[in-house]
Amino acid sequence: MDTLTRLEHTIAERRSADPGSSYVAQLTSRGVPVMARKVGEEAVETAVAALSGTREDLVGEAADVIFHLMVLLAAKGIPLREVMEELDRREGLSGLEEKASRSE
Amino acid sequence: MDTLTRLEHTIAERRSADPGSSYVAQLTSRGVPVMARKVGEEAVETAVAALSGTREDLVGEAADVIFHLMVLLAAKGIPLREVMEELDRREGLSGLEEKASRSE
Amino acid sequence: MDTLTRLEHTIAERRSADPGSSYVAQLTSRGVPVMARKVGEEAVETAVAALSGTREDLVGEAADVIFHLMVLLAAKGIPLREVMEELDRREGLSGLEEKASRSE
Amino acid sequence: MDTLTRLEHTIAERRSADPGSSYVAQLTSRGVPVMARKVGEEAVETAVAALSGTREDLVGEAADVIFHLMVLLAAKGIPLREVMEELDRREGLSGLEEKASRSE
Repeated sequence: MDTLTRLEHTIAERRSADPGSSYVAQLTSRGVPVMARKVGEEAVETAVAALSGTREDLVGEAADVIFHLMVLLAAKGIPLREVMEELDRREGLSGLEEKASRSE
Repeated sequence: MDTLTRLEHTIAERRSADPGSSYVAQLTSRGVPVMARKVGEEAVETAVAALSGTREDLVGEAADVIFHLMVLLAAKGIPLREVMEELDRREGLSGLEEKASRSE
Repeated sequence: MDTLTRLEHTIAERRSADPGSSYVAQLTSRGVPVMARKVGEEAVETAVAALSGTREDLVGEAADVIFHLMVLLAAKGIPLREVMEELDRREGLSGLEEKASRSE
Repeated sequence: MDTLTRLEHTIAERRSADPGSSYVAQLTSRGVPVMARKVGEEAVETAVAALSGTREDLVGEAADVIFHLMVLLAAKGIPLREVMEELDRREGLSGLEEKASRSE
């Protein structure tokens, strides 16, 4: 099973764990606004790491973005598969059609 | 081949394409600061979509975050595999150890 | 009258203007989520400009952050004076007390 | 003296203080990337507060954005006056000219 599929299962399991022993459960108990905020903040840290950090910083921040994005998707009941299908759909388009197909 | 592996190949190919016909090539020609900015901006849009958009908006914004993150990683010469290995490594840790293992 | 006081008046006036002729009216018609998103995006651009742009870029992005923040505050019915009072209140505290007085 | 002018003086003074007793000195010792990151993060928190927080949350986050933006400008040697002059300059333009005059 690949990393993201396994991570999605782990997140689904930990959502109902004790917030005292699981970071996912802690985020779940704090709610969607906190998860949404974390996605934004980790992406800011990723941008800063790309411009002034080490390679290791960037790998860690990129992992943080993906992790918190998956926690947010889980909270909103969106399977990762739907995001992958959206990426596949765009991949079928040529490069600039693809850009035009996005929301602003 | 899974979605992200295929997308990583596509991005690698398009980086050297004509910026007039490929969005990836266009980002590549604009440089890392623009890619870093896009990662941050798409994550802000994801956060806002999670709080006030439709399910479809959130799927689209999440796809945008992943796409631009992969363009940025490609530009910095970081294979997606390294980010997946970092996520695997954390997965081996218990929930709160995992949190503690991150940079602030 | 200082710049921000004057800008606050201009924003208040333009909120009800024709969205076809005023950017403030356009943002107002698009709603709080768009204004909130713009504040986040302009701050990401400010961060990137501080790390890789010119001095002029940074001045322009900082102005964009303040402008969009004021449009958002106006939409939420918060006078700039309240934010200034909060800054004054913190100023009365010593440096680290001040930090501790903030939300995480 | 108005709030921002006074705050600008306080920041200038505290920059060279002991990082153990001043938050401004602590940020100064950590460098521009950390300040840039804080501006982005506080703006994300502002966006989230506008969409799902209380009025008090939003006032606090807006104050955080302005404070960290001023710390960043100080570190880059940019007087607040230059940002105010940029806002004044745009104010002289009509609404949509103003929008067009910005960087993307």
